[in-house]
Amino acid sequence: MNQNNFLIIMAGGAGTRFWPFSRNNNPKQFHDVLGIGKTLLQQTADRFKNICPLENIYVVTSQQYTDLVLEQMPYLSDSQILAEPSRKNTAPCIAYACYKIGVINSEANIIVSPADHIVLYEQEFENKINICIDEAENSDHLVTLGISPTRPDTGYGYIKFENSDNVVKKVERFLEKPDLETALSFIKSGEFVWNAGIFVWSLATFKKSFKKLMPVMAQQFELGIDHYFTETESNYINITYKQCESISIDYALMEKATNVYVVLGNVGWSDLGTWKSLHEASEKDNYNNVIDGNIVIYDTKNSIIKTPKNKLIVVQGLDGYIVADHDNVLMICKKEEEQNVKAFVEMAKNKGDEFI
Amino acid sequence: MNQNNFLIIMAGGAGTRFWPFSRNNNPKQFHDVLGIGKTLLQQTADRFKNICPLENIYVVTSQQYTDLVLEQMPYLSDSQILAEPSRKNTAPCIAYACYKIGVINSEANIIVSPADHIVLYEQEFENKINICIDEAENSDHLVTLGISPTRPDTGYGYIKFENSDNVVKKVERFLEKPDLETALSFIKSGEFVWNAGIFVWSLATFKKSFKKLMPVMAQQFELGIDHYFTETESNYINITYKQCESISIDYALMEKATNVYVVLGNVGWSDLGTWKSLHEASEKDNYNNVIDGNIVIYDTKNSIIKTPKNKLIVVQGLDGYIVADHDNVLMICKKEEEQNVKAFVEMAKNKGDEFI
Repeated sequence: MNQNNFLIIMAGGAGTRFWPFSRNNNPKQFHDVLGIGKTLLQQTADRFKNICPLENIYVVTSQQYTDLVLEQMPYLSDSQILAEPSRKNTAPCIAYACYKIGVINSEANIIVSPADHIVLYEQEFENKINICIDEAENSDHLVTLGISPTRPDTGYGYIKFENSDNVVKKVERFLEKPDLETALSFIKSGEFVWNAGIFVWSLATFKKSFKKLMPVMAQQFELGIDHYFTETESNYINITYKQCESISIDYALMEKATNVYVVLGNVGWSDLGTWKSLHEASEKDNYNNVIDGNIVIYDTKNSIIKTPKNKLIVVQGLDGYIVADHDNVLMICKKEEEQNVKAFVEMAKNKGDEFI
Repeated sequence: MNQNNFLIIMAGGAGTRFWPFSRNNNPKQFHDVLGIGKTLLQQTADRFKNICPLENIYVVTSQQYTDLVLEQMPYLSDSQILAEPSRKNTAPCIAYACYKIGVINSEANIIVSPADHIVLYEQEFENKINICIDEAENSDHLVTLGISPTRPDTGYGYIKFENSDNVVKKVERFLEKPDLETALSFIKSGEFVWNAGIFVWSLATFKKSFKKLMPVMAQQFELGIDHYFTETESNYINITYKQCESISIDYALMEKATNVYVVLGNVGWSDLGTWKSLHEASEKDNYNNVIDGNIVIYDTKNSIIKTPKNKLIVVQGLDGYIVADHDNVLMICKKEEEQNVKAFVEMAKNKGDEFI
């Protein structure tokens, strides 16, 4: 294993799209969403087990989740868990981790990955990530893993690449979530992939590109070099986060840089951003149900039922529903109406903080 | 209030028709089924508050439920809670209580009532019970309150009476649950009422009639007179229950006696034997839903949703369902398929005793 390979896992999100499972004090990445015995965070780390030594994994998360991270990844030392004092989107998160890694290894190859996505074809994923690392190590390119689209999804951002026979293709531009017509044209052209938020670069390339496009933020985290891995780190970060801009790495760096390349992967990726995507990604019974819990069903199909293991659930006569029982919330709703979950969360907020 | 009036509440049932609410260790009579702040047992006692002094209430229950009874009726003394060592149907239960009451009041007027029914029109109920008591006190009749039927229910037993202008009518016979055609003919004739299992008699009349029709059992409980209200009572009852027949009071006494009379009542009675009957008896929202819990509904109608107060429930898109969340069981099923609940309970038995 290349001892220069480092992994940054971004685990600070607090989304509520999987409410009532994802909660303010226990968001999605810390859940075993697929019911397979490992949380999404643990699965994310596992995905890189042949690529990156355990001591080279850095998890950036919110201060309130550091204990959860340590619980789920007990092999991490304190210095491998980077606690953000506030949410400032992905650019500060990634800059903080990259500059910190730079303190101990100036030759680092850095992979950045969200903590709450899934990848079904792990071997293919590993192969493609290794191609990305090779490219990053041997060029001054910022590399991203683009997901070969399987449908005209309007919930993902897209990346347009320059068609060529090369495995590593030059990126033409990044595109926001399209409408359905646009998404269909993207798929038809064959020159677009989904943006999975997975980035690979050498430390040197990152620093150079970031300094050029984000000079203020680059300096803010560069100046931390005297503090990282010392007792003053958290104090320095608290001050820096108060001052730094809130901006995504896509907008700050990837969309503006001209040295961005993409490796295409058909890796069974999903951001699990919706219950529907969970349904698609999960194992189903003969009636197209996704069942996770101590559940007995009668005359039920096309449904997702996720409930606590120690509770007996009897469901009769549902077609196309989500039944989600977690902690102090039970949600039952039509799968096709899951866009309402946002409204449910707003409603729940008014009922009390303990429900969100 | 007539100090001779006594009430026997039969609270030993362990039915599972309201599973997952009614459970072996906490059956229906101990639940606030209607969600109005009082359990069915408490409501039953309340129903007689102007009829019978508190110290004249006797509750017969299973040994395992005596603590529950005391918890819900803390004003009872230990001697007012009669613990049955085994289930022997209603005749031994009633005989035990009647002969025990006979020890302290030979002039007693005794009302027998199930613990798990509801009565919506309490004033009318009180009026009719008072008529029953007058009749019982001033005659040698066994009196029952018959419920004027509001539909051809096939789930209830019926009583045929001799038509007359008298308020208290002679009973011709008791009839088991009929099929729909028969039930329709009963309703049409106007000479049938529902058997609610509510009986009123003087102690003297009961003893005389019971001795005549059930001589063995009458002697078994008559011989207990030296033990009732003493330390040897429970020992005597344990032995007697092992020996005595298991038989209902209907079959042992009411159907065979020739001195049975009925008072007709339109009192909003239901035995709450089905979820459907609960739906009928409960207050409904504008969409015909019965809602009991911390529940927010969207696009939902004709449903019953009963869940714990401390849990937030969000339901979207259900029509005609039962959602019952209690303790370690969640049941979701179509209201019209509630006959399946029996099968659910059988299934749950196999999953573990903790679920039934």
